[in-house]
Amino acid sequence: MAISTVVFDAYGTLYDIQSVASVTEQAFPGRGDMITQIWRMKQLEYTWLRSLMRRYEDFEAVTRQSLVYTLRVLGLGYEEALLEVIMDKYVNLDPYPDTLSTLERLQDRKLAILSNGAPAMLDALVRNTGLDRFLDKTISVDSRATFKPSPEAYSLIESELGAAPAEVLFVSSNPWDAIGAKAAGLTVAWIERVTPEAMAAACESCALVAPLTMFKAMRMQMDELGLAPDHRVRGLFDLPGLLPPIARP
Amino acid sequence: MAISTVVFDAYGTLYDIQSVASVTEQAFPGRGDMITQIWRMKQLEYTWLRSLMRRYEDFEAVTRQSLVYTLRVLGLGYEEALLEVIMDKYVNLDPYPDTLSTLERLQDRKLAILSNGAPAMLDALVRNTGLDRFLDKTISVDSRATFKPSPEAYSLIESELGAAPAEVLFVSSNPWDAIGAKAAGLTVAWIERVTPEAMAAACESCALVAPLTMFKAMRMQMDELGLAPDHRVRGLFDLPGLLPPIARP
Repeated sequence: MAISTVVFDAYGTLYDIQSVASVTEQAFPGRGDMITQIWRMKQLEYTWLRSLMRRYEDFEAVTRQSLVYTLRVLGLGYEEALLEVIMDKYVNLDPYPDTLSTLERLQDRKLAILSNGAPAMLDALVRNTGLDRFLDKTISVDSRATFKPSPEAYSLIESELGAAPAEVLFVSSNPWDAIGAKAAGLTVAWIERVTPEAMAAACESCALVAPLTMFKAMRMQMDELGLAPDHRVRGLFDLPGLLPPIARP
Repeated sequence: MAISTVVFDAYGTLYDIQSVASVTEQAFPGRGDMITQIWRMKQLEYTWLRSLMRRYEDFEAVTRQSLVYTLRVLGLGYEEALLEVIMDKYVNLDPYPDTLSTLERLQDRKLAILSNGAPAMLDALVRNTGLDRFLDKTISVDSRATFKPSPEAYSLIESELGAAPAEVLFVSSNPWDAIGAKAAGLTVAWIERVTPEAMAAACESCALVAPLTMFKAMRMQMDELGLAPDHRVRGLFDLPGLLPPIARP
């Protein structure tokens, strides 16, 4: 069956979550990148742990809690108001340079986001960055009260878009998300964004490598979870090449 | 109700998982500690991701897969036989210095392990280290085909030991495990093992801190998951002080 629908992950796939570093660096000079890396790692852990414990709180709460954890583990004091300033960046993340042009080139398909994001923060982000013009729907996992990679999260694609798994291409740069979608029966394109060679070079003397480089490399290497994505692409810009033009239904 | 039963996590609580560094260092001189830290982090991630995806494989498989990931992300080549040499350390981990003496002092209670470990690797570990003499039971999550912190994993305590949650003290040094047990209705002692002061000192200049220090600090700080353990203790040696002597039923 031809691919009629392309569904994108938001954070890390259409939007550069590393762009929060501009705000964290302003708040804590010299620590911005470190905060950004730990924050992301714990944010993901908390989505998985809360899903497993059946103690769901939405992504805004989890994002705030993982930020608090991060500042605490780094021994950084803060005022409550500062948390809000940093959190605000999550509704104003930078799209990747190829995000808009790719969505534009794929307008013959139905396009949507499936994200862990809470509905309000996701809607604000999409609107603030003008992506709403190109997307047919923005779907939050919130209605299922669990996070990706729970199969219940991915099943929202079928229930919200009416698209059978066989006609969907799911796109994510997050290895665990790509594998989660694959496990849920979808066709998956994984955005690698860095080449293995670049990563190996960054890790040439790993005993000495900066923690930031290590954290980044760890988020970008495909996981060993017994499944593989259908496609590996270098960036969003590679997607139109995977999808021959069709007449939009 | 009085505490009649003390249930311990194994890896990181009774056994020092950092002790695998002796083997990883021998296999990859200068990288042993880095391998150990990344391996542990990904091992945990994989337990959570596989549980969420409902793609359970046992802890031996997950441990091997996360080791493969680690060597790959560090760009280290290896022979299959080397994986077996490293994996073998998991059935010969070092107990903490206060493990045996604490179990001995708590012999007036029913004592057990509840662990993510696969039954064969867990039984071998307990036997190889002589802890079987002090434990009434070693329980693996394997029969539930999910990992901690799923509530189904903790419910094995009641079904396998016949102990109601109110008479159990669950002991873990892993923050997510302590919170998971708490969410499942147990009384929990969290072993902090390092003081917040020691951690803050290690993080004094976190932008420059070695990745290993950071990884370790991140595993030892209590998580922001909306729940708190009932007790914080410095080591296993503190437990007898929490538990007044009783006549064993």
